[in-house]
Amino acid sequence: MADTGRTKVHEQVPQVARSPLPERGAPLSAARVTIADIAQEAGVSVATVSKVLNGHSQVSDSTREKVEALLESSNYLRRRSRPTHTVGLIDLVINELDSPWSVEVVRGVEEVAAQHRTGLVVTAVHGRTADTLRWIDNLTRRGSDGVILAVTALARAQRQQIQDLNAPLVVVDPVGNPDPSIPSVGATNWHGGLTATQHLLQLGHRRIGLLAGPQDVLSARARLDGYRAALEGAGIPVDPRLVQPGDFHHGTGLTGMRDLLALPDPPTAVFACSDLQALGAYEALRHAGLQVGRDVSVVGFDDLPTSSWASPPLTTVRQPLSEMAAMAARIVLQGVDTVLPGGMRRLELATELVERESTAPVAC
Amino acid sequence: MADTGRTKVHEQVPQVARSPLPERGAPLSAARVTIADIAQEAGVSVATVSKVLNGHSQVSDSTREKVEALLESSNYLRRRSRPTHTVGLIDLVINELDSPWSVEVVRGVEEVAAQHRTGLVVTAVHGRTADTLRWIDNLTRRGSDGVILAVTALARAQRQQIQDLNAPLVVVDPVGNPDPSIPSVGATNWHGGLTATQHLLQLGHRRIGLLAGPQDVLSARARLDGYRAALEGAGIPVDPRLVQPGDFHHGTGLTGMRDLLALPDPPTAVFACSDLQALGAYEALRHAGLQVGRDVSVVGFDDLPTSSWASPPLTTVRQPLSEMAAMAARIVLQGVDTVLPGGMRRLELATELVERESTAPVAC
Repeated sequence: MADTGRTKVHEQVPQVARSPLPERGAPLSAARVTIADIAQEAGVSVATVSKVLNGHSQVSDSTREKVEALLESSNYLRRRSRPTHTVGLIDLVINELDSPWSVEVVRGVEEVAAQHRTGLVVTAVHGRTADTLRWIDNLTRRGSDGVILAVTALARAQRQQIQDLNAPLVVVDPVGNPDPSIPSVGATNWHGGLTATQHLLQLGHRRIGLLAGPQDVLSARARLDGYRAALEGAGIPVDPRLVQPGDFHHGTGLTGMRDLLALPDPPTAVFACSDLQALGAYEALRHAGLQVGRDVSVVGFDDLPTSSWASPPLTTVRQPLSEMAAMAARIVLQGVDTVLPGGMRRLELATELVERESTAPVAC
Repeated sequence: MADTGRTKVHEQVPQVARSPLPERGAPLSAARVTIADIAQEAGVSVATVSKVLNGHSQVSDSTREKVEALLESSNYLRRRSRPTHTVGLIDLVINELDSPWSVEVVRGVEEVAAQHRTGLVVTAVHGRTADTLRWIDNLTRRGSDGVILAVTALARAQRQQIQDLNAPLVVVDPVGNPDPSIPSVGATNWHGGLTATQHLLQLGHRRIGLLAGPQDVLSARARLDGYRAALEGAGIPVDPRLVQPGDFHHGTGLTGMRDLLALPDPPTAVFACSDLQALGAYEALRHAGLQVGRDVSVVGFDDLPTSSWASPPLTTVRQPLSEMAAMAARIVLQGVDTVLPGGMRRLELATELVERESTAPVAC
């Protein structure tokens, strides 16, 4: 079952490589133009033309315009970039559309799909089995050039149905144990947890609380382990009373922070494993008459748009959700071996600390 | 050109109404079953069966299951609900996917599309002409069962191209002057502005600031007029110094509130024409060492998820974005005359005040 999906991904690749060889010296006619001809005419490398064809962003606007004009005038794109057996649609299947991170994923996939002149079909499965099945029925009926899964879990039978579609399949931000046979794109969660905690340590904080994500979610576990690694690296033993359980949502941020403040020796800073938990911590601090930043430092995780609208703006670890989604879309549309080094099936994009105003040096 | 769209919308309607009449007393066979037969068998009204067929939510789960089982066993759905000439896809065209309200629109459309076993293709046009044209090319190539536009403006030529597709077209939340020939779904913006301001008046506030939306956007103008109407209804002259220009975004909320606080007689409350402007006002108040609610009351407009995560949670006027989008999807999929009273082409869904913790009685 894994091989079916992987083989299809391979088949998807050589759209450009299979172009017939040009006759040297032949004029740039619509009938036989190749990317080598386009490259020569534009005065750029074949790789650059390939990047333009594949919608890569690492091409200057002027080069892209020149190459696209040549492709257009030679009818290259129309003849080659869309083999007749493709459907012209890719599918994004997502758990819920009511979370602030879902729109980041939709946006990332849509941008790449638009570059490839491919429509993006968005389906929310709401974690309900009946809806999931209905979605697979739809897909089977109309076909799809590829499927991007941004769901927490999928039953084996459903995964088999998807693989039977013979379309490339990529998983974005798997929170469970990623299946090594299916390409997946994640983020460096452990490193993000490490960075967030090191930032607080550098500000002089020694008692640092943690508002944890769901215990059964690997990314949450990785962030927690990054927190522990930073503390241990600084020679500070982890105090289990400072680690509050949670679920990535606002409510557990609020209750977790409230419980931390009720300790006999409350923390002076807290690392929340999601931005929403961080905003919940804001609210608990407000209830306690404390000021975020001045009295207690708060770091979040995600860098959702909402974190820059918080008051004070939230220092957080940026998880590049739209870039992860865009990478998944490129894998689906260009083939995994075009996008990733040969044989690679797993990629994690870097997280980075975004410093705003919710963290400050520890009060003396 | 307007007539083309309208006629097509009419043609879309009678999928159910045109079902052949049943032979009275005939058995419930797959060959000739009608909704009347299904209704009789299920012990419900024809209207209820129609609601199930059309994906309305006002049917109990048990009734829906019973009716769906009968429809399924009689093959009714397979034969009638998807004429062979439909594509099985509808299109949502949206300006940007990076605003917090875009996800509300996507969610509302997706829910109705899923109920109708129809795929939802999402396209962001980024306000760029080239992308818009590319999108229309895609649509023309693959076809669409209907188009929902959530864009601020569309050139006449592009609109003509869409209407040439011969697919139903509906506009969500038009911020410009809605074309009366195209069905559109909006919100009661004037009434929302009135309600927000009346709420502050009832709390005893007499100097109430306004953080306005873009001058050229009709919905922003309507909210401003609602504010003025409430003040004048309470016998309070509108002070133009209390009306700050803005653009719905966070930045103008911050600067507008800052300017209001710099007045010799600053307001004790402010109505922001968007939630993001309200959050900008929070930040200006924090900079001034003032507390939201206790020192200055703030009301927003939209009720985006982010407003309930604010600290303190934001009192705001709920704009039912996902319901507006769902209504637009129903019009596209069921026909405007099925969803709206005959001949109606414009609908505004009600706004309502959501009281949280950012408003309080005026300090004595």
